[in-house]
Amino acid sequence: MNRKKTYKQILVGLAKDAGKIMRKNFALGMKKEWKEDNTPLTITDTTINKLVIRKIRKNFPTHSILGEEESFLQESEYTWVCDPVDGTIPFSHGYPAFMFSLALVKNGVPIAGVLYDPILKRLFYAEKGKGAFLNGVRTRVSKKTELKGALVGINSRKLLDFIKMMRMKHEAFPVMFHGSTYGASLVACGEFIAEVYGADKPWDAAAVKIIVEEAGGKVTDLYGNEQRYDGPIHGSVATNGLVHEEILKEIKASLKK
Amino acid sequence: MNRKKTYKQILVGLAKDAGKIMRKNFALGMKKEWKEDNTPLTITDTTINKLVIRKIRKNFPTHSILGEEESFLQESEYTWVCDPVDGTIPFSHGYPAFMFSLALVKNGVPIAGVLYDPILKRLFYAEKGKGAFLNGVRTRVSKKTELKGALVGINSRKLLDFIKMMRMKHEAFPVMFHGSTYGASLVACGEFIAEVYGADKPWDAAAVKIIVEEAGGKVTDLYGNEQRYDGPIHGSVATNGLVHEEILKEIKASLKK
Repeated sequence: MNRKKTYKQILVGLAKDAGKIMRKNFALGMKKEWKEDNTPLTITDTTINKLVIRKIRKNFPTHSILGEEESFLQESEYTWVCDPVDGTIPFSHGYPAFMFSLALVKNGVPIAGVLYDPILKRLFYAEKGKGAFLNGVRTRVSKKTELKGALVGINSRKLLDFIKMMRMKHEAFPVMFHGSTYGASLVACGEFIAEVYGADKPWDAAAVKIIVEEAGGKVTDLYGNEQRYDGPIHGSVATNGLVHEEILKEIKASLKK
Repeated sequence: MNRKKTYKQILVGLAKDAGKIMRKNFALGMKKEWKEDNTPLTITDTTINKLVIRKIRKNFPTHSILGEEESFLQESEYTWVCDPVDGTIPFSHGYPAFMFSLALVKNGVPIAGVLYDPILKRLFYAEKGKGAFLNGVRTRVSKKTELKGALVGINSRKLLDFIKMMRMKHEAFPVMFHGSTYGASLVACGEFIAEVYGADKPWDAAAVKIIVEEAGGKVTDLYGNEQRYDGPIHGSVATNGLVHEEILKEIKASLKK
Protein backbone atom coordinates (compact mmCIF):
# COMPACT_ATOMS: atom_id res chain seq x y z
CA MET A 1 0.00 0.00 0.00
CA ASN A 2 1.33 3.39 -0.96
CA ARG A 3 0.03 5.55 1.92
CA LYS A 4 0.75 9.23 1.90
CA LYS A 5 3.32 10.24 4.53
CA THR A 6 2.22 12.26 7.57
CA TYR A 7 3.50 15.77 8.20
CA LYS A 8 5.65 14.43 10.98
CA GLN A 9 7.20 11.75 8.78
CA ILE A 10 8.03 14.37 6.16
CA LEU A 11 9.53 16.82 8.64
CA VAL A 12 11.60 14.30 10.57
CA GLY A 13 12.61 12.35 7.47
CA LEU A 14 13.82 15.48 5.66
CA ALA A 15 15.68 16.65 8.77
CA LYS A 16 17.60 13.40 8.97
CA ASP A 17 18.33 13.32 5.24
CA ALA A 18 19.53 16.94 5.36
CA GLY A 19 21.61 16.18 8.44
CA LYS A 20 23.45 13.38 6.62
CA ILE A 21 24.32 15.74 3.77
CA MET A 22 25.49 18.45 6.19
CA ARG A 23 27.67 16.05 8.19
CA LYS A 24 29.22 14.72 5.00
CA ASN A 25 29.95 18.19 3.61
CA PHE A 26 31.01 20.00 6.79
CA ALA A 27 34.74 20.48 6.34
CA LEU A 28 37.39 23.13 6.70
CA GLY A 29 38.25 25.18 3.62
CA MET A 30 34.79 24.70 2.15
CA LYS A 31 34.09 26.26 -1.24
CA LYS A 32 31.60 29.09 -0.92
CA GLU A 33 30.19 31.72 -3.21
CA TRP A 34 29.19 35.09 -1.80
CA LYS A 35 25.68 36.27 -2.45
CA GLU A 36 24.76 39.90 -3.10
CA ASP A 37 23.83 40.41 0.56
CA ASN A 38 27.42 39.50 1.59
CA THR A 39 26.48 36.07 2.95
CA PRO A 40 27.88 32.79 1.66
CA LEU A 41 26.16 30.07 -0.35
CA THR A 42 27.40 26.49 -0.57
CA ILE A 43 26.48 23.47 -2.64
CA THR A 44 24.98 22.02 0.56
CA ASP A 45 22.34 24.79 0.75
CA THR A 46 21.15 24.23 -2.80
CA THR A 47 21.28 20.41 -2.62
CA ILE A 48 19.14 20.28 0.52
CA ASN A 49 16.72 22.93 -0.73
CA LYS A 50 16.12 20.86 -3.90
CA LEU A 51 15.62 17.70 -1.84
CA VAL A 52 12.99 19.45 0.29
CA ILE A 53 11.08 20.69 -2.74
CA ARG A 54 11.17 17.28 -4.43
CA LYS A 55 9.94 15.38 -1.39
CA ILE A 56 7.17 17.82 -0.49
CA ARG A 57 5.89 18.15 -4.04
CA LYS A 58 5.69 14.38 -4.26
CA ASN A 59 3.71 14.06 -1.03
CA PHE A 60 1.71 17.30 -0.99
CA PRO A 61 1.52 18.50 -4.59
CA THR A 62 -0.98 21.29 -3.81
CA HIS A 63 1.15 22.93 -1.07
CA SER A 64 3.52 25.87 -1.46
CA ILE A 65 7.20 25.69 -0.54
CA LEU A 66 9.15 28.76 0.53
CA GLY A 67 12.88 28.07 0.76
CA GLU A 68 15.89 30.27 1.35
CA GLU A 69 17.50 29.26 -1.93
CA GLU A 70 14.56 28.12 -4.04
CA SER A 71 10.77 28.09 -3.74
CA PHE A 72 7.72 26.50 -5.35
CA LEU A 73 4.79 28.80 -4.81
CA GLN A 74 1.15 28.31 -5.71
CA GLU A 75 -2.32 29.12 -4.32
CA SER A 76 -2.51 27.17 -1.08
CA GLU A 77 -3.32 27.71 2.57
CA TYR A 78 -0.30 25.50 3.36
CA THR A 79 3.29 26.67 2.97
CA TRP A 80 6.38 24.69 3.94
CA VAL A 81 9.00 27.19 5.07
CA CYS A 82 12.56 25.94 4.91
CA ASP A 83 16.10 27.01 5.64
CA PRO A 84 18.21 24.20 4.23
CA VAL A 85 21.33 25.24 6.14
CA ASP A 86 20.28 27.62 8.88
CA GLY A 87 23.63 29.24 9.64
CA THR A 88 25.57 28.97 6.39
CA ILE A 89 28.13 31.41 7.79
CA PRO A 90 29.20 29.11 10.65
CA PHE A 91 28.68 26.00 8.50
CA SER A 92 31.07 27.31 5.87
CA HIS A 93 33.63 28.55 8.42
CA GLY A 94 34.21 25.42 10.42
CA TYR A 95 32.16 26.08 13.50
CA PRO A 96 29.29 23.89 14.53
CA ALA A 97 26.36 26.26 15.11
CA PHE A 98 24.05 25.41 12.23
CA MET A 99 20.80 23.53 11.78
CA PHE A 100 18.24 22.30 9.33
CA SER A 101 14.99 24.21 9.78
CA LEU A 102 11.57 23.37 8.30
CA ALA A 103 8.05 24.31 9.34
CA LEU A 104 4.58 23.70 7.96
CA VAL A 105 2.64 26.96 8.03
CA LYS A 106 -1.16 27.05 7.60
CA ASN A 107 -2.68 30.44 6.79
CA GLY A 108 0.44 32.11 8.16
CA VAL A 109 0.57 30.10 11.41
CA PRO A 110 3.25 27.43 11.96
CA ILE A 111 1.47 24.19 12.89
CA ALA A 112 4.43 21.80 12.92
CA GLY A 113 8.19 22.22 12.70
CA VAL A 114 11.60 20.67 13.03
CA LEU A 115 15.07 21.97 13.90
CA TYR A 116 17.97 19.57 13.55
CA ASP A 117 21.58 19.95 14.69
CA PRO A 118 23.36 17.29 12.64
CA ILE A 119 26.61 17.48 14.62
CA LEU A 120 25.16 16.80 18.06
CA LYS A 121 22.21 14.93 16.49
CA ARG A 122 19.65 17.00 18.37
CA LEU A 123 16.28 16.79 16.67
CA PHE A 124 13.64 19.21 17.93
CA TYR A 125 10.08 18.55 16.80
CA ALA A 126 6.80 20.21 17.70
CA GLU A 127 3.21 20.10 16.58
CA LYS A 128 0.50 22.63 17.50
CA GLY A 129 -0.98 21.73 20.88
CA LYS A 130 1.12 18.58 21.34
CA GLY A 131 4.28 19.90 23.02
CA ALA A 132 7.89 20.09 21.86
CA PHE A 133 10.25 17.13 21.81
CA LEU A 134 14.02 16.73 21.68
CA ASN A 135 14.94 13.33 20.28
CA GLY A 136 11.53 12.08 21.33
CA VAL A 137 11.65 13.40 24.88
CA ARG A 138 9.47 16.32 26.04
CA THR A 139 11.58 19.50 26.16
CA ARG A 140 10.82 22.72 28.04
CA VAL A 141 12.13 26.28 28.30
CA SER A 142 13.97 27.41 31.44
CA LYS A 143 12.26 28.82 34.51
CA LYS A 144 14.89 31.52 35.00
CA THR A 145 13.39 34.94 35.69
CA GLU A 146 16.49 37.11 35.64
CA LEU A 147 18.84 37.98 32.83
CA LYS A 148 21.99 38.04 34.98
CA GLY A 149 24.17 35.11 34.04
CA ALA A 150 21.71 34.01 31.34
CA LEU A 151 22.64 33.26 27.74
CA VAL A 152 20.93 35.28 25.05
CA GLY A 153 21.34 34.41 21.38
CA ILE A 154 21.46 37.36 19.03
CA ASN A 155 21.17 37.25 15.31
CA SER A 156 20.97 40.80 14.03
CA ARG A 157 23.12 43.66 12.82
CA LYS A 158 20.45 46.10 13.96
CA LEU A 159 20.82 45.07 17.58
CA LEU A 160 24.42 45.78 18.43
CA ASP A 161 23.33 48.23 21.14
CA PHE A 162 21.04 45.56 22.52
CA ILE A 163 24.06 43.26 22.84
CA LYS A 164 25.88 45.92 24.81
CA MET A 165 22.90 46.47 27.07
CA MET A 166 22.53 42.75 27.73
CA ARG A 167 26.21 42.42 28.65
CA MET A 168 26.80 45.63 30.60
CA LYS A 169 23.48 46.51 32.19
CA HIS A 170 22.10 43.01 32.77
CA GLU A 171 25.32 40.98 33.03
CA ALA A 172 23.86 38.44 30.64
CA PHE A 173 26.01 36.59 28.10
CA PRO A 174 25.06 37.54 24.55
CA VAL A 175 26.06 35.03 21.91
CA MET A 176 26.03 36.12 18.29
CA PHE A 177 24.84 33.72 15.66
CA HIS A 178 24.91 34.87 12.06
CA GLY A 179 21.90 33.77 10.07
CA SER A 180 21.37 30.86 12.44
CA THR A 181 18.59 30.03 14.87
CA TYR A 182 20.96 27.84 16.84
CA GLY A 183 20.30 29.93 19.94
CA ALA A 184 16.56 29.37 19.62
CA SER A 185 17.02 25.61 19.77
CA LEU A 186 18.85 26.20 23.05
CA VAL A 187 15.92 28.29 24.29
CA ALA A 188 13.61 25.34 23.55
CA CYS A 189 15.68 23.06 25.76
CA GLY A 190 16.12 25.53 28.61
CA GLU A 191 19.80 26.41 28.19
CA PHE A 192 19.41 29.91 26.72
CA ILE A 193 16.85 32.35 28.10
CA ALA A 194 16.15 34.12 24.79
CA GLU A 195 17.05 34.44 21.14
CA VAL A 196 16.54 37.60 19.15
CA TYR A 197 16.55 37.70 15.37
CA GLY A 198 16.51 41.04 13.62
CA ALA A 199 15.88 40.43 9.92
CA ASP A 200 12.85 39.64 7.76
CA LYS A 201 13.37 36.09 6.52
CA PRO A 202 10.55 33.77 7.61
CA TRP A 203 12.68 30.59 7.26
CA ASP A 204 14.83 31.83 10.14
CA ALA A 205 11.82 31.91 12.46
CA ALA A 206 8.89 29.68 11.41
CA ALA A 207 10.13 26.46 13.03
CA VAL A 208 11.40 28.45 16.01
CA LYS A 209 7.89 29.87 16.56
CA ILE A 210 6.19 26.50 16.94
CA ILE A 211 9.03 24.71 18.74
CA VAL A 212 9.79 27.37 21.36
CA GLU A 213 6.11 28.00 22.06
CA GLU A 214 5.28 24.30 22.37
CA ALA A 215 8.23 24.09 24.80
CA GLY A 216 6.39 26.62 26.97
CA GLY A 217 8.05 29.82 25.73
CA LYS A 218 6.86 32.82 23.82
CA VAL A 219 7.68 34.05 20.31
CA THR A 220 6.68 37.41 18.83
CA ASP A 221 8.08 39.86 16.33
CA LEU A 222 10.58 42.52 17.48
CA TYR A 223 7.73 44.75 18.67
CA GLY A 224 5.84 42.14 20.68
CA ASN A 225 3.22 41.36 18.02
CA GLU A 226 2.02 38.13 16.46
CA GLN A 227 2.80 37.83 12.74
CA ARG A 228 2.45 35.55 9.72
CA TYR A 229 5.35 33.21 8.88
CA ASP A 230 4.72 32.64 5.17
CA GLY A 231 6.17 35.95 4.00
CA PRO A 232 8.59 38.64 5.22
CA ILE A 233 8.61 38.98 9.00
CA HIS A 234 9.52 41.73 11.46
CA GLY A 235 12.26 39.80 13.22
CA SER A 236 11.65 37.25 15.92
CA VAL A 237 11.96 37.27 19.70
CA ALA A 238 11.91 33.80 21.23
CA THR A 239 12.12 33.62 25.03
CA ASN A 240 11.16 31.42 27.92
CA GLY A 241 8.12 33.69 28.33
CA LEU A 242 9.15 34.93 31.77
CA VAL A 243 11.61 37.53 30.46
CA HIS A 244 9.75 38.34 27.25
CA GLU A 245 8.50 41.80 28.25
CA GLU A 246 11.88 42.81 29.67
CA ILE A 247 13.65 41.73 26.49
CA LEU A 248 11.11 43.57 24.31
CA LYS A 249 11.62 46.73 26.35
CA GLU A 250 15.40 46.61 25.83
CA ILE A 251 14.99 45.92 22.11
CA LYS A 252 12.73 48.94 21.83
CA ALA A 253 15.26 51.13 23.63
CA SER A 254 18.10 49.82 21.42
CA LEU A 255 16.24 50.35 18.17
CA LYS A 256 15.49 53.96 19.12
CA LYS A 257 19.17 54.84 19.44
CA MET B 1 62.12 0.57 30.04
CA ASN B 2 60.32 3.41 31.80
CA ARG B 3 61.32 6.36 29.63
CA LYS B 4 60.08 9.79 30.55
CA LYS B 5 57.39 11.04 28.20
CA THR B 6 58.16 13.85 25.73
CA TYR B 7 56.42 17.21 25.95
CA LYS B 8 54.41 16.31 22.88
CA GLN B 9 53.28 13.01 24.35
CA ILE B 10 52.13 14.77 27.51
CA LEU B 11 50.29 17.52 25.65
CA VAL B 12 48.56 15.28 23.15
CA GLY B 13 47.84 12.56 25.70
CA LEU B 14 46.27 14.97 28.16
CA ALA B 15 44.21 16.59 25.40
CA LYS B 16 42.75 13.25 24.40
CA ASP B 17 42.08 12.20 28.00
CA ALA B 18 40.42 15.55 28.72
CA GLY B 19 38.41 15.26 25.52
CA LYS B 20 37.00 11.91 26.60
CA ILE B 21 35.86 13.40 29.90
CA MET B 22 34.29 16.42 28.17
CA ARG B 23 32.44 14.30 25.63
CA LYS B 24 31.10 12.04 28.38
CA ASN B 25 29.95 14.97 30.55
CA PHE B 26 28.61 17.31 27.85
CA ALA B 27 24.86 17.18 28.35
CA LEU B 28 21.87 19.47 28.60
CA GLY B 29 20.79 20.60 32.05
CA MET B 30 24.32 20.24 33.43
CA LYS B 31 24.85 21.06 37.09
CA LYS B 32 26.97 24.18 37.49
CA GLU B 33 28.04 26.36 40.36
CA TRP B 34 28.55 30.05 39.78
CA LYS B 35 31.89 31.52 40.77
CA GLU B 36 32.31 34.98 42.25
CA ASP B 37 33.12 36.45 38.85
CA ASN B 38 29.67 35.35 37.59
CA THR B 39 31.03 32.51 35.47
CA PRO B 40 30.12 28.85 35.91
CA LEU B 41 32.21 25.98 37.24
CA THR B 42 31.46 22.33 36.60
CA ILE B 43 32.79 19.06 37.91
CA THR B 44 34.42 18.60 34.50
CA ASP B 45 36.66 21.66 35.02
CA THR B 46 37.98 20.44 38.34
CA THR B 47 38.35 16.80 37.25
CA ILE B 48 40.44 17.68 34.22
CA ASN B 49 42.51 20.26 36.10
CA LYS B 50 43.45 17.61 38.69
CA LEU B 51 44.32 15.11 35.97
CA VAL B 52 46.65 17.65 34.35
CA ILE B 53 48.44 18.37 37.61
CA ARG B 54 48.82 14.68 38.43
CA LYS B 55 50.25 13.72 35.07
CA ILE B 56 52.65 16.65 34.78
CA ARG B 57 53.93 16.30 38.35
CA LYS B 58 54.63 12.66 37.67
CA ASN B 59 56.59 13.36 34.49
CA PHE B 60 58.14 16.76 35.25
CA PRO B 61 58.23 17.12 39.02
CA THR B 62 60.32 20.30 38.97
CA HIS B 63 57.95 22.22 36.65
CA SER B 64 55.21 24.65 37.71
CA ILE B 65 51.58 24.22 36.72
CA LEU B 66 49.24 27.17 36.36
CA GLY B 67 45.62 26.08 35.91
CA GLU B 68 42.34 27.94 35.80
CA GLU B 69 40.91 25.98 38.73
CA GLU B 70 44.02 24.78 40.56
CA SER B 71 47.78 25.31 40.32
CA PHE B 72 51.04 23.80 41.55
CA LEU B 73 53.62 26.54 41.62
CA GLN B 74 57.32 26.33 42.43
CA GLU B 75 60.61 27.92 41.33
CA SER B 76 61.01 26.80 37.73
CA GLU B 77 61.68 28.30 34.33
CA TYR B 78 58.98 25.95 33.00
CA THR B 79 55.26 26.50 33.59
CA TRP B 80 52.46 24.41 32.14
CA VAL B 81 49.52 26.75 31.58
CA CYS B 82 46.15 25.04 31.40
CA ASP B 83 42.47 25.78 30.88
CA PRO B 84 40.78 22.45 31.57
CA VAL B 85 37.52 23.50 29.88
CA ASP B 86 38.21 26.56 27.81
CA GLY B 87 34.67 27.87 27.39
CA THR B 88 32.83 26.58 30.45
CA ILE B 89 29.94 28.92 29.63
CA PRO B 90 29.14 27.25 26.29
CA PHE B 91 30.10 23.81 27.65
CA SER B 92 27.60 24.14 30.48
CA HIS B 93 24.86 25.58 28.26
CA GLY B 94 24.67 22.97 25.56
CA TYR B 95 26.56 24.58 22.77
CA PRO B 96 29.69 23.11 21.28
CA ALA B 97 32.27 25.92 21.33
CA PHE B 98 34.72 24.73 23.96
CA MET B 99 38.20 23.23 24.02
CA PHE B 100 40.94 21.82 26.15
CA SER B 101 43.90 24.20 26.21
CA LEU B 102 47.42 23.50 27.49
CA ALA B 103 50.77 25.11 26.78
CA LEU B 104 54.31 24.66 28.02
CA VAL B 105 55.80 28.06 28.74
CA LYS B 106 59.56 28.55 29.24
CA ASN B 107 60.63 31.82 30.86
CA GLY B 108 57.30 33.34 29.88
CA VAL B 109 57.40 32.16 26.24
CA PRO B 110 55.07 29.36 25.02
CA ILE B 111 57.27 26.68 23.39
CA ALA B 112 54.62 24.00 22.76
CA GLY B 113 50.85 23.86 23.01
CA VAL B 114 47.68 22.00 22.26
CA LEU B 115 44.05 22.99 21.66
CA TYR B 116 41.49 20.22 21.39
CA ASP B 117 37.85 20.39 20.34
CA PRO B 118 36.47 17.11 21.66
CA ILE B 119 33.17 17.31 19.74
CA LEU B 120 34.66 17.66 16.25
CA LYS B 121 37.85 15.88 17.36
CA ARG B 122 40.08 18.65 16.08
CA LEU B 123 43.47 18.50 17.72
CA PHE B 124 45.76 21.46 17.13
CA TYR B 125 49.40 21.02 18.13
CA ALA B 126 52.42 23.28 17.70
CA GLU B 127 56.00 23.39 18.83
CA LYS B 128 58.34 26.38 18.54
CA GLY B 129 59.86 26.50 15.06
CA LYS B 130 58.20 23.30 13.88
CA GLY B 131 54.86 24.56 12.51
CA ALA B 132 51.28 23.98 13.61
CA PHE B 133 49.34 20.82 12.92
CA LEU B 134 45.65 19.92 12.91
CA ASN B 135 45.20 16.20 13.44
CA GLY B 136 48.74 15.68 12.20
CA VAL B 137 48.40 17.76 9.04
CA ARG B 138 50.14 21.13 8.63
CA THR B 139 47.64 23.95 9.22
CA ARG B 140 47.92 27.58 8.17
CA VAL B 141 46.15 30.90 8.74
CA SER B 142 44.13 32.48 5.93
CA LYS B 143 45.58 34.80 3.31
CA LYS B 144 42.62 37.16 3.41
CA THR B 145 43.65 40.79 3.57
CA GLU B 146 40.30 42.48 4.07
CA LEU B 147 37.91 42.34 6.98
CA LYS B 148 34.76 42.50 4.85
CA GLY B 149 32.96 39.17 5.07
CA ALA B 150 35.60 37.79 7.44
CA LEU B 151 34.83 36.10 10.75
CA VAL B 152 36.31 37.64 13.88
CA GLY B 153 36.08 35.88 17.23
CA ILE B 154 35.61 38.17 20.21
CA ASN B 155 35.96 37.24 23.82
CA SER B 156 35.70 40.38 25.90
CA ARG B 157 33.22 42.57 27.69
CA LYS B 158 35.53 45.54 27.20
CA LEU B 159 35.26 45.33 23.44
CA LEU B 160 31.58 45.75 22.71
CA ASP B 161 32.28 48.88 20.67
CA PHE B 162 34.89 46.94 18.74
CA ILE B 163 32.20 44.40 17.84
CA LYS B 164 30.01 47.19 16.53
CA MET B 165 32.86 48.64 14.52
CA MET B 166 33.70 45.26 12.99
CA ARG B 167 30.09 44.66 11.97
CA MET B 168 29.03 48.14 10.82
CA LYS B 169 32.19 49.80 9.55
CA HIS B 170 34.02 46.74 8.19
CA GLU B 171 31.08 44.42 7.38
CA ALA B 172 32.90 41.61 9.12
CA PHE B 173 31.06 38.95 11.14
CA PRO B 174 31.95 39.17 14.83
CA VAL B 175 31.32 35.98 16.80
CA MET B 176 31.26 36.21 20.56
CA PHE B 177 32.81 33.43 22.59
CA HIS B 178 32.62 33.68 26.35
CA GLY B 179 35.77 32.54 28.06
CA SER B 180 36.65 30.38 25.09
CA THR B 181 39.48 30.51 22.57
CA TYR B 182 37.39 28.55 20.11
CA GLY B 183 37.72 31.38 17.61
CA ALA B 184 41.51 31.25 17.83
CA SER B 185 41.54 27.61 16.80
CA LEU B 186 39.59 28.71 13.73
CA VAL B 187 42.20 31.40 13.06
CA ALA B 188 44.88 28.69 13.12
CA CYS B 189 43.10 26.72 10.39
CA GLY B 190 42.29 29.71 8.20
CA GLU B 191 38.53 29.99 8.77
CA PHE B 192 38.49 33.08 11.01
CA ILE B 193 40.68 36.08 10.28
CA ALA B 194 41.21 37.09 13.92
CA GLU B 195 40.32 36.43 17.53
CA VAL B 196 40.45 39.07 20.23
CA TYR B 197 40.47 38.28 23.92
CA GLY B 198 40.11 41.10 26.43
CA ALA B 199 40.87 39.73 29.89
CA ASP B 200 44.01 38.85 31.83
CA LYS B 201 43.97 35.06 32.19
CA PRO B 202 47.07 33.47 30.63
CA TRP B 203 45.38 30.04 30.19
CA ASP B 204 43.04 31.63 27.65
CA ALA B 205 45.96 32.65 25.47
CA ALA B 206 49.18 30.65 26.02
CA ALA B 207 48.35 27.77 23.65
CA VAL B 208 46.79 30.22 21.21
CA LYS B 209 50.07 32.17 21.06
CA ILE B 210 52.19 29.24 19.92
CA ILE B 211 49.58 27.56 17.71
CA VAL B 212 48.45 30.64 15.77
CA GLU B 213 52.02 31.89 15.29
CA GLU B 214 53.29 28.51 14.15
CA ALA B 215 50.36 28.49 11.70
CA GLY B 216 51.81 31.68 10.20
CA GLY B 217 49.77 34.24 12.14
CA LYS B 218 50.60 36.85 14.72
CA VAL B 219 49.67 37.09 18.41
CA THR B 220 50.26 40.12 20.64
CA ASP B 221 48.57 41.70 23.61
CA LEU B 222 45.73 44.21 23.07
CA TYR B 223 48.25 47.01 22.50
CA GLY B 224 50.44 45.20 19.98
CA ASN B 225 53.17 44.19 22.43
CA GLU B 226 54.82 40.87 23.20
CA GLN B 227 54.13 39.61 26.73
CA ARG B 228 54.82 36.74 29.12
CA TYR B 229 52.27 33.92 29.35
CA ASP B 230 53.02 32.57 32.82
CA GLY B 231 51.16 35.29 34.73
CA PRO B 232 48.39 37.85 34.13
CA ILE B 233 48.28 39.06 30.53
CA HIS B 234 46.98 42.17 28.77
CA GLY B 235 44.50 40.36 26.57
CA SER B 236 45.39 38.63 23.35
CA VAL B 237 45.02 39.49 19.68
CA ALA B 238 45.50 36.52 17.37
CA THR B 239 45.25 37.21 13.66
CA ASN B 240 46.43 35.88 10.32
CA GLY B 241 49.14 38.55 10.52
CA LEU B 242 47.93 40.42 7.44
CA VAL B 243 45.18 42.31 9.29
CA HIS B 244 46.97 42.58 12.63
CA GLU B 245 47.72 46.30 12.48
CA GLU B 246 44.22 47.16 11.29
CA ILE B 247 42.65 45.15 14.11
CA LEU B 248 44.96 46.74 16.69
CA LYS B 249 44.01 50.19 15.43
CA GLU B 250 40.30 49.47 15.86
CA ILE B 251 40.85 47.99 19.31
CA LYS B 252 42.70 51.13 20.33
CA ALA B 253 39.87 53.32 19.06
CA SER B 254 37.26 51.17 20.86
CA LEU B 255 39.10 51.18 24.18
CA LYS B 256 39.36 54.98 24.09
CA LYS B 257 35.58 55.40 23.92
